[in-house]
Amino acid sequence: MAPLGSRDALPGGMNPDLASERLAASFSVELLTASLDGGAERTRGRRAIVEAIESDPVFSQENQYFQSQNEKYEAAVRRAVYLQKKIRAMGWTQNGPEVQDICRCLSGDIALVLHRVFMRSISVLGSDKQIAKWIPLATDYQIIGSYAQTELGHGTYLQGLETTAVFDTATQEFILNTPKISAMKWWPGDMGRSATHTVVFAQLYVHGKCYGVHPFILQIRSLEDHSPRPGVTVGDIGPKMDFQHADNGFLLLQNVRVPRENMLSKFCEVQPDGTYVRWGSQKINYFTMTSVRISILSDEAIVPLMKACTIAIRYSAVRRQSKLKPGEQEAKILDYQTQQQKLLPQLATAYAFHFINTYLHELFNKGYQDIQAKNFDSLPELHAFSSGFKALITQHCTSGVEICLRACGGHGYSLLSGLPSLYTRIIASCIYEGENTVLLLQTARFLIKCFMAASAGQRVPPSVTYLSSVKSGKCPAKDKSDFLRPEIYLKAYEQMAVRLVSSSAAKLQHLIQSGVDKHDAWNQCTVQLEKAAKAHCHYITVKNFVEAVENLDNKAGIQKIMKHLCDLFALHGIFSNVGDFLYDGHLTAAHMDLVTASYLDLLAVIRKDAVPLVDAFDFTDKSLSSALGSYDGQVYQRLYEWAQKSPTNQQGNPAYDKYLKPLLQNTLSKL
Amino acid sequence: MAPLGSRDALPGGMNPDLASERLAASFSVELLTASLDGGAERTRGRRAIVEAIESDPVFSQENQYFQSQNEKYEAAVRRAVYLQKKIRAMGWTQNGPEVQDICRCLSGDIALVLHRVFMRSISVLGSDKQIAKWIPLATDYQIIGSYAQTELGHGTYLQGLETTAVFDTATQEFILNTPKISAMKWWPGDMGRSATHTVVFAQLYVHGKCYGVHPFILQIRSLEDHSPRPGVTVGDIGPKMDFQHADNGFLLLQNVRVPRENMLSKFCEVQPDGTYVRWGSQKINYFTMTSVRISILSDEAIVPLMKACTIAIRYSAVRRQSKLKPGEQEAKILDYQTQQQKLLPQLATAYAFHFINTYLHELFNKGYQDIQAKNFDSLPELHAFSSGFKALITQHCTSGVEICLRACGGHGYSLLSGLPSLYTRIIASCIYEGENTVLLLQTARFLIKCFMAASAGQRVPPSVTYLSSVKSGKCPAKDKSDFLRPEIYLKAYEQMAVRLVSSSAAKLQHLIQSGVDKHDAWNQCTVQLEKAAKAHCHYITVKNFVEAVENLDNKAGIQKIMKHLCDLFALHGIFSNVGDFLYDGHLTAAHMDLVTASYLDLLAVIRKDAVPLVDAFDFTDKSLSSALGSYDGQVYQRLYEWAQKSPTNQQGNPAYDKYLKPLLQNTLSKL
Repeated sequence: MAPLGSRDALPGGMNPDLASERLAASFSVELLTASLDGGAERTRGRRAIVEAIESDPVFSQENQYFQSQNEKYEAAVRRAVYLQKKIRAMGWTQNGPEVQDICRCLSGDIALVLHRVFMRSISVLGSDKQIAKWIPLATDYQIIGSYAQTELGHGTYLQGLETTAVFDTATQEFILNTPKISAMKWWPGDMGRSATHTVVFAQLYVHGKCYGVHPFILQIRSLEDHSPRPGVTVGDIGPKMDFQHADNGFLLLQNVRVPRENMLSKFCEVQPDGTYVRWGSQKINYFTMTSVRISILSDEAIVPLMKACTIAIRYSAVRRQSKLKPGEQEAKILDYQTQQQKLLPQLATAYAFHFINTYLHELFNKGYQDIQAKNFDSLPELHAFSSGFKALITQHCTSGVEICLRACGGHGYSLLSGLPSLYTRIIASCIYEGENTVLLLQTARFLIKCFMAASAGQRVPPSVTYLSSVKSGKCPAKDKSDFLRPEIYLKAYEQMAVRLVSSSAAKLQHLIQSGVDKHDAWNQCTVQLEKAAKAHCHYITVKNFVEAVENLDNKAGIQKIMKHLCDLFALHGIFSNVGDFLYDGHLTAAHMDLVTASYLDLLAVIRKDAVPLVDAFDFTDKSLSSALGSYDGQVYQRLYEWAQKSPTNQQGNPAYDKYLKPLLQNTLSKL
Repeated sequence: MAPLGSRDALPGGMNPDLASERLAASFSVELLTASLDGGAERTRGRRAIVEAIESDPVFSQENQYFQSQNEKYEAAVRRAVYLQKKIRAMGWTQNGPEVQDICRCLSGDIALVLHRVFMRSISVLGSDKQIAKWIPLATDYQIIGSYAQTELGHGTYLQGLETTAVFDTATQEFILNTPKISAMKWWPGDMGRSATHTVVFAQLYVHGKCYGVHPFILQIRSLEDHSPRPGVTVGDIGPKMDFQHADNGFLLLQNVRVPRENMLSKFCEVQPDGTYVRWGSQKINYFTMTSVRISILSDEAIVPLMKACTIAIRYSAVRRQSKLKPGEQEAKILDYQTQQQKLLPQLATAYAFHFINTYLHELFNKGYQDIQAKNFDSLPELHAFSSGFKALITQHCTSGVEICLRACGGHGYSLLSGLPSLYTRIIASCIYEGENTVLLLQTARFLIKCFMAASAGQRVPPSVTYLSSVKSGKCPAKDKSDFLRPEIYLKAYEQMAVRLVSSSAAKLQHLIQSGVDKHDAWNQCTVQLEKAAKAHCHYITVKNFVEAVENLDNKAGIQKIMKHLCDLFALHGIFSNVGDFLYDGHLTAAHMDLVTASYLDLLAVIRKDAVPLVDAFDFTDKSLSSALGSYDGQVYQRLYEWAQKSPTNQQGNPAYDKYLKPLLQNTLSKL
């Protein structure tokens, strides 16, 4: 089957510099793609879907770089509505593989994403009766839902939400208010311009007593003319760094009443007389957050990094600049060691995260089965994993995309390269679904707890048993090739992680023993705790990459090239964090010279397969939307053709007429 | 005098959380501002200019976050034309302090910047006759100039430019061509829509012989109807990550003829018979690049970082989230150690760069005097300084702005915070005027040369004499307070820089001696050479900060707080690059614990003065254009008011009518 990306080739044909890169591949790209997809059949299925979507003009993303906020919003709504029709027509399931493939292919430029969160929250938190009433309506888009949790003054700290819901026994209604400006709901997607309904989170008051935050279904706009309902003020929060297609909104409530049965009541209820009843476990909420954090990793972080690598590496094999030696042709910029050092570690990271993502999904699925069997034991570990990896992966993918953008020089800065929009979007992933620092500190809390338990001889979850491992003393490596042995670098990572966790724990204990309040002590250790959590996740990622490589069939050289990438990922981590490894003497300065030598050697080795390694991600030209990254490498031709389409070149220049023309009136006579 | 920023306060008055921060200041903000400005009189002058510009509606930047590319372009042209009128009316000099103050205040959102480069290139490279002809026309904007150097296929490597200028003796003209698509001029500012003329850089050919790249004055558009001249194709290169107000352009030339006298001929000339004559020194070009790199540092890198710090730190003193201790009020996020660790090192960096910028300007002015006295000795050092510091400063300021953006959570991601536009703009500074990696390698080349010379006992420029210093052995620090002694940390930095330079030189020599071609050997060392260049610049920055603090009057606690910032800057550099300092054993792991302890202590100390320290940068609310960073701290009120202005909230919703309304038609009957 022809590679997906080749279909948009310009008449000029394949750039010979790119063609030669592909001829030199040490492995079969097709086999690697199939291996990443989980089988050749899955690859075929995905490609058929992508083909169908990309040939349908309704889903076209052409001209996206020239659109206004309004145009982007309209296109995203159009896509969402047609996608739903398509799902029905094709008989696909709502979150089946086809829909996932389509979402990947549309790069998230689709509206009514929060409508799905609205539905999920009703499904998870609503009673059977509520589910029966609202879910069919929402499934048919007969109501448009949103999810109103975050407030102008509150994000991370849900307990601090200021919106109130006061129960009125006389009318059997809740009276909803956003009593202060900071209580205004702010950021909910699909709310600024689309939603008719929303799930509002508010502090529940009954007979003057506060029962904490609860969710309520609220109609915010008329179903007849879409105008705000009485007491509701709603609108768009204005322009953002990206996500212009999403109508993130604000919501003010003044004495808005909803019937008693609109409080989502799977786990608790206010009875007609005001009696508050609670049943079921709160832990399920915990699990919902976990599931969301894991579910966003691929499309919102790893795929964008893969795309950025594809664009930057293909461009670097086409772009020639300066000479490596006098008298020679100008060199491909990918042949400069500094360019390899920028891009190839990002490529290795993309693969490392692909494998850890698979691992996290397996872990999550196992956890889900346990929970269905009412076994909640794995929840703390799952929560720690999802928090820490969400932070680690979004952070590394964001800096990776930035590195790719900057590595393309001036042309990377053009929107037409596709890189700026990848960046302005991915950076949001460091903030939403839990700010990364807050998340890492949650992971750290779990690690400290486990470390203390392990030290006291108690049983801890399998992923952290290493915390009780004994110090191994010096690293036995004698030669640079020793650092290509996974057991050598894994031991170094393990020891580094153990040390960072144990020394944070020691500092914490020391402060508390010397009389510092335990909360102050925690705050005084957070810089180090954050670092320890990162080290733990980094170690697990390397370990998982090693295991994934071991499990690969050694077909057509795939295992070999993956081993190189795994080594590069591991050694780049050491090379970039030398101090953490030198600190306790496990590695010495002489070891570091060996690590550096091996690391730089690997750059030159992987450089040879760099283009095939990004080809294997199998992005179409349409989904890359990049003049620099297209499969045929016709970089300059495409930049020029796309620039012509810019509205700026299609319209007049009133600024010239108004301001410059008057100045030029006497010039001719003077020349 | 009242602080500048206070004038835009909302009726709600000062946020009490910000007020209390200011009451607690350990120093006089007014004195620090004056000290940064270089005197109280200069502060008064600057404020008067800012006041005049900001009260003039022509220069208004209101609604900037809601404008289209076209609207931004038009506003920028309007400002440029009016600014020129104002300069004339006030009798200011073209590059005098008033104009500099205005440019700082307009944050670079002004057109015709390349017109000034056009003029400078004629002034520097043109003959007296050319200057007499073109400069008066350009000064009056009777022609609009641009500067066409970069091509679609060539940026950094000027020798590789592909545009040709062939001399035709018969007509005494040069025939200009962009013979391939990659030869097309691409990126020149003011060219896409504004310019009538440009200076084009092209390979000069006479009688079939190539004489290398030369500059030619070329008219590209009609002075009557602004249409492109025959043989000229010109337009806008399309949307970019930022700089939407600038009409970066492309230019194709097909047999466009310019008269012989349009080649800029201060240093060389083609005589009527085709004889090529060259005189004067090429080194002056070297000096022009140096001057540009130094001149952009303040407005394009350091000021944006100062603004980002102002916004993020004020917001962090107003925003409350979660509790440090149960039962307490929610804490200001600035009280979390992790938030301090994000923001306060950026604040220290902004101050460090303010001082190194002053130093670089002094060095440059001295160099300029030498050159006027025909002494070119300081040029290599100046070139190495301007290259290395341009790279170091733009790189650190860019990551600093990103850190500030992310530290403001979701609200930082709103354009209304002012942070996204600071970021999308400052990141370009890492690419333009020399890509940072290329520049650092030029600095490295200078360092290696000096190191070899110093090792051979030859005299080297003063800034690098330290390279021949003897290894001092172990650091004598015994206590965490020892790391607040500049001689202790300076020695550590010095030794680290010497080691990185000397080990790169040793590797290079070793490779060459073992038979590797010297150019290949250079390429194989570039990752380490780049690091060495950074280390050198970092060391000089710390050293200069220490000296600047020593020279400060100890008035009203200014020297004391600056000393804290200097210590923080130095220790943060060690804390973030532990491996470089541990490597040769000058610092030990035990020392690192002391560094960490001192560093974390400093965060808590500087946190107390964080708000006054950003107040001292003296930005007006208008120039910050930030709902989060205003002087009065009315964060939520301003976000809400500004969001109302968004065009999205002022217009209808055709997407709803087209796509969603039809779906909702039967809903009412089902509810």
